[in-house]
Amino acid sequence: MSSASTLSSICFEQGCWSKGERKIRVGADKRVVKRPSSSMSFRVSASSAEKKDIRIGLLGASGYTGAEIVRLLANHPHFGVTLMTADRKAGQSMDSVFPHLTAQKLPRLISVKDADFSSVDAVFCCLPHGTTQEIIKGLPTALKIVDLSADFRLRDVSEYEEWYGQPHKAVELQKEVVYGLTELLRDDIKKARLVANPGCYPTSVQLPLVPLLKANLIKLENIIIDAKSGVSGAGRGAKEANLYSEIAEGISSYGVTRHRHVPEIEQGLSDVVQSKVTVSFTPHLMPMIRGMQSTIYVEMAPGVRTEDLYQQLKSSYEDEEFVKVLEEGVVPRTHNVRGSNYCFMNVFPDRIPGRAIIISVIDNLVKGASGQALQNLNIMLGLPETMGLLHQPLFP
Amino acid sequence: MSSASTLSSICFEQGCWSKGERKIRVGADKRVVKRPSSSMSFRVSASSAEKKDIRIGLLGASGYTGAEIVRLLANHPHFGVTLMTADRKAGQSMDSVFPHLTAQKLPRLISVKDADFSSVDAVFCCLPHGTTQEIIKGLPTALKIVDLSADFRLRDVSEYEEWYGQPHKAVELQKEVVYGLTELLRDDIKKARLVANPGCYPTSVQLPLVPLLKANLIKLENIIIDAKSGVSGAGRGAKEANLYSEIAEGISSYGVTRHRHVPEIEQGLSDVVQSKVTVSFTPHLMPMIRGMQSTIYVEMAPGVRTEDLYQQLKSSYEDEEFVKVLEEGVVPRTHNVRGSNYCFMNVFPDRIPGRAIIISVIDNLVKGASGQALQNLNIMLGLPETMGLLHQPLFP
Amino acid sequence: MSSASTLSSICFEQGCWSKGERKIRVGADKRVVKRPSSSMSFRVSASSAEKKDIRIGLLGASGYTGAEIVRLLANHPHFGVTLMTADRKAGQSMDSVFPHLTAQKLPRLISVKDADFSSVDAVFCCLPHGTTQEIIKGLPTALKIVDLSADFRLRDVSEYEEWYGQPHKAVELQKEVVYGLTELLRDDIKKARLVANPGCYPTSVQLPLVPLLKANLIKLENIIIDAKSGVSGAGRGAKEANLYSEIAEGISSYGVTRHRHVPEIEQGLSDVVQSKVTVSFTPHLMPMIRGMQSTIYVEMAPGVRTEDLYQQLKSSYEDEEFVKVLEEGVVPRTHNVRGSNYCFMNVFPDRIPGRAIIISVIDNLVKGASGQALQNLNIMLGLPETMGLLHQPLFP
Amino acid sequence: MSSASTLSSICFEQGCWSKGERKIRVGADKRVVKRPSSSMSFRVSASSAEKKDIRIGLLGASGYTGAEIVRLLANHPHFGVTLMTADRKAGQSMDSVFPHLTAQKLPRLISVKDADFSSVDAVFCCLPHGTTQEIIKGLPTALKIVDLSADFRLRDVSEYEEWYGQPHKAVELQKEVVYGLTELLRDDIKKARLVANPGCYPTSVQLPLVPLLKANLIKLENIIIDAKSGVSGAGRGAKEANLYSEIAEGISSYGVTRHRHVPEIEQGLSDVVQSKVTVSFTPHLMPMIRGMQSTIYVEMAPGVRTEDLYQQLKSSYEDEEFVKVLEEGVVPRTHNVRGSNYCFMNVFPDRIPGRAIIISVIDNLVKGASGQALQNLNIMLGLPETMGLLHQPLFP
Repeated sequence: MSSASTLSSICFEQGCWSKGERKIRVGADKRVVKRPSSSMSFRVSASSAEKKDIRIGLLGASGYTGAEIVRLLANHPHFGVTLMTADRKAGQSMDSVFPHLTAQKLPRLISVKDADFSSVDAVFCCLPHGTTQEIIKGLPTALKIVDLSADFRLRDVSEYEEWYGQPHKAVELQKEVVYGLTELLRDDIKKARLVANPGCYPTSVQLPLVPLLKANLIKLENIIIDAKSGVSGAGRGAKEANLYSEIAEGISSYGVTRHRHVPEIEQGLSDVVQSKVTVSFTPHLMPMIRGMQSTIYVEMAPGVRTEDLYQQLKSSYEDEEFVKVLEEGVVPRTHNVRGSNYCFMNVFPDRIPGRAIIISVIDNLVKGASGQALQNLNIMLGLPETMGLLHQPLFP
Repeated sequence: MSSASTLSSICFEQGCWSKGERKIRVGADKRVVKRPSSSMSFRVSASSAEKKDIRIGLLGASGYTGAEIVRLLANHPHFGVTLMTADRKAGQSMDSVFPHLTAQKLPRLISVKDADFSSVDAVFCCLPHGTTQEIIKGLPTALKIVDLSADFRLRDVSEYEEWYGQPHKAVELQKEVVYGLTELLRDDIKKARLVANPGCYPTSVQLPLVPLLKANLIKLENIIIDAKSGVSGAGRGAKEANLYSEIAEGISSYGVTRHRHVPEIEQGLSDVVQSKVTVSFTPHLMPMIRGMQSTIYVEMAPGVRTEDLYQQLKSSYEDEEFVKVLEEGVVPRTHNVRGSNYCFMNVFPDRIPGRAIIISVIDNLVKGASGQALQNLNIMLGLPETMGLLHQPLFP
Repeated sequence: MSSASTLSSICFEQGCWSKGERKIRVGADKRVVKRPSSSMSFRVSASSAEKKDIRIGLLGASGYTGAEIVRLLANHPHFGVTLMTADRKAGQSMDSVFPHLTAQKLPRLISVKDADFSSVDAVFCCLPHGTTQEIIKGLPTALKIVDLSADFRLRDVSEYEEWYGQPHKAVELQKEVVYGLTELLRDDIKKARLVANPGCYPTSVQLPLVPLLKANLIKLENIIIDAKSGVSGAGRGAKEANLYSEIAEGISSYGVTRHRHVPEIEQGLSDVVQSKVTVSFTPHLMPMIRGMQSTIYVEMAPGVRTEDLYQQLKSSYEDEEFVKVLEEGVVPRTHNVRGSNYCFMNVFPDRIPGRAIIISVIDNLVKGASGQALQNLNIMLGLPETMGLLHQPLFP
Repeated sequence: MSSASTLSSICFEQGCWSKGERKIRVGADKRVVKRPSSSMSFRVSASSAEKKDIRIGLLGASGYTGAEIVRLLANHPHFGVTLMTADRKAGQSMDSVFPHLTAQKLPRLISVKDADFSSVDAVFCCLPHGTTQEIIKGLPTALKIVDLSADFRLRDVSEYEEWYGQPHKAVELQKEVVYGLTELLRDDIKKARLVANPGCYPTSVQLPLVPLLKANLIKLENIIIDAKSGVSGAGRGAKEANLYSEIAEGISSYGVTRHRHVPEIEQGLSDVVQSKVTVSFTPHLMPMIRGMQSTIYVEMAPGVRTEDLYQQLKSSYEDEEFVKVLEEGVVPRTHNVRGSNYCFMNVFPDRIPGRAIIISVIDNLVKGASGQALQNLNIMLGLPETMGLLHQPLFP
């Protein structure tokens, strides 16, 4: 089978378009460019699953991260969603739950207990914390799985039980889990069967801090993280606290020192330095839907300058598509990554000698959840990791 | 040249990825799927212009519609931006003006007077009203041009002069202009050299009303349009009235009966019925960045029922990718088209017998501006019109 | 008892401040002004109920309209809240439910069944529709009552049953109810024992339309009301549809032609013209907390000009504190009435000859609910109706 | 003159209402309450200046802080605005500049050079930094002045020149300036003629930190302030960066380590400990109009516990109307002080032993600007400091 015919059976972003070509002359210099001979009689539409060659199951499709997976896969040339579960919405169509996906052809929502997992090749699991372990334990071992819940993120089972207040129900499985912080653990992810997709806060914190800790440029003590998140991170559950009238036009801290992302952050940082790191972590809820910023206050190791931190980050990420260390002095803004898989970061000198301020921003639903999940599955299946993820940020 | 090799030279959404394949077994049933043999050593990045075969000039790149063109073209397999002008920002890099485009490689901004138009194949013109006519008049006649300003939308030169308070400076050129309301004028656009891209309000109003007027289902009199728009439609100019503190948490009408989109709307409707139509049009400014809704109150022709209107719209747009008539009773919401080129619409019965309510929603910067512009240029150059436009809406 | 000593027992906005005075010289001309002799040793605080002479019961204190009553009464010199009920929050303090009221001394929330109504002089009832009729039926007849629910607004009991889908449970009581549209029914309210406080939409619509209909300046047919409301009107109930992520940055119509405020509006307009008026009414949900605008499209009676409408409204409201007809051409904006009891309105010519556009704006929680309720109770108890209501709008 | 007749000439929040009384029986127990005998024939309206006895000049009335002064004074029984300047808007009426003030009778805006300062008793100066020193230098020495600019906040003239980049133009005057952080410097303010009203950030930071530093409960080193502000703090100037489309739905740091409020904060803290304190200060711009939060990360002195910090703040502010230390564990939210003069604060334990997290919130335009200014002028003129300031927060 030639690659041409392979490609002609592939549905990519601009449609299934490789049916021949014609030459026309364009521009002032009448250059010849080629385009499909039959384009006008040929209607391209948003990719539907049946034309794609890798069948994706989506567990927990009625939440924001589930919908975001669907949005991203609409432009993925290989991954077609062929199975979608949502227990409380079982029987409904996806577009009745998320009308913005009306233009796509999607399978009807079913209950997870009715799902035939032999019909899919890989699974994104967007189920709530606590229910995920048992469900994933029951999945066929041939499946590649990216789990977006917190259920497999903590390697230390007792820590899970402490922070989540319930026994871990898949202790054996936990051992083979790979933590999916893509840029830092790419080689492990490549070989993984089950990836625990990182939390949004831990992604925004570890991406800048891990390279700096690895290079011994900052102290382990007194790492202070003032984090700010959009409300979509709280999910679609109907809670008084997340009503428009309660959120708009005001801000507030929440879960001061007790947020469940703390042990995940500390696990990641401690791994690097082979020593227990305790951080100060205060999340704040922002009147915005998407977006997350971590403002991180650190003490530099003796003799280290802000410039050294900058250079370290710059070189750590110079080949990365999705992590951008901005030019010196340019402030990362969440506006500038909205809807995209990018993480923008930068380092600033502090007024207090010996200290530095690190700022990183992501879209909590993309690089902080569904985007990174797709990035991971691309890697697990041997595809270019940017596939389906090169949408540019939506601004304004 | 085979289509395979053609495709291998094309940069599409997921990168320039057709360098061979390997077979691996995935899923529970060990089906064989193919993927690039060398994917891991192969870094895909946001499309840069040099790999693309059609060279695009972008005039007025420092405004929101200019930036939106760039965002959309990032995932277009053929159109590469090779020339960008922005007189007041000449010499700057695009990412200093729009940091959300940092990941893209783009030419430096230059002054329009320094532009070499022989080096491009087509042009998007995002310049302000009033200055556009003279600049377009001076462009090489071989160029395909989509103009996003209002300067060529009004066929009647005297009407332009009345509403814009200045003489038309390209009267001859006006005669060959095609009005770019894609779904309704596709055949003309195919042959056009210069397309006047419709205004956002006129797009949201004409898409539902034109088929109904054509079918004689509604009366010409007393068409009342209560329109609502996000603030981005006002552009990036620094005006007190558009400050966050002036816009957030409140609404207001503006330009009551005097908005410059009125003659454009009336021109479009009058053309259909071959008779002068005068509409009531009241735009309202909404505390949101993107999104536009037209709530249109109409009197039906004698004997016509709301159901007839619905069926007419349904059949008019059944084959369209970008215009969706929702299921009966489903309310179109601007949230559900944000960031996308879709127009959602629906028809509702009024309490007053013989009347109906029509609601249409678009993203004012996409279907209302840059998205429709790209849709038009695709058609003008013989490409599938959806190319680069199949991003799904960003929700939440 | 002298009026001085009376006043010394009254708590007004700036505290209980009348304990004597001293003369000091201020300003360039050393004018003598008087002020309390002991001000510095004298700590003034937000009015607490015990110092006030009219005891107010608040039923349903845990919703937004209940909290708004409390906010307004904090600066009322006579009304002290001495009884607060909230069945689901019984036993809690008000500031645990509404922390913005922390500075006030308020009674603990109790269940309505535990309330001793002999200890209050008047009641604001902020209970949900449907439960209100029975509770009010059971109150002592000596109480003055302002009911903010819809339960007593429709004079025609069968209409209530049609729109609310349940039998009316206080049919006898309904007969003595006075509809509380203050500016238009002030004389009836003066003598009322039970006032049905108008809905927010009906307030914003009737204030401009009633004087025009009374004066026969507009036609009864084809009154088209495109109304827009902030989300707080939907209350504090935890609903997915009202989450920040679902509301922010987008708009949508809701309850098209079926909103429950329709019969109330039509009742009010029909009363004026002694003939059944059917209106077109389409509410829209706006991404803002407070604020409501009704954009009303009307046909003028033969020979009537927009100017006539303007003059009629101007003269109808020239002596009113809370209804302001703006200068000609000035657009009413919801921003400009936020947090206040004002209604701003204006009239504009339409492009279609013989038609006019009327715009009115209010804060849905103040003039559209709790503010008008206080205005009514002031009147019912013989106080100046502006008492406690002269806060200026909060802008920006 | 009796206090009764004095009061009858005073316009307070609920109007000029003391013309006699009548007794009526209200409530179930027919208690006698008194109210004005003539209330129904007596129309109360928003306080107009002529009825008030202290004449206020407002310099720079066309900005947000100027408008906020007017809003607050509308309900002040003594302060009437009789002079308003706004150079660029000279000749206009205030309600054409700020339509939300339409209901008030205000003097026409004039140019500051045309102002007759002999006709006022006190002045609020809301002019821009840099121009203020010279203007205030030229005012009659009999005037009481509260300056809301930064021009007199820094005691050290050279520091002013370093941070503001221009020579200080009123060095002599600087010596007599009193810094107006009301709760901490009340006694000095009482005797002051010219008060430099604190910046919003410095207010939110010093109120919690000063008592803790005074009591030696926290270390001087490594005080890290992550501050968040609404956009109104940036004023009404037309800047691209503050457009709705640039601000909404995203956050960003700005002026990292270089914000001009830094020296003011450090001056205040250094004064307490008689030693130079250097803080880390990073402000963030929030997508909201009003509101400010400072999240402050501190190291406690040896042996000190979070509880000690809490008790210190609790006792420092127990008698204050406007500073509230919330119950333990309750998070201060900017929503809960919106539109009011309150500062809410609390202390939280940090995960890192020996550290604590302090959170304070204010409305930047009220306690952070115009409200505190009024509080100060009340004190300077011997009035109760809460006068005109007891509006409760606007929530939702």
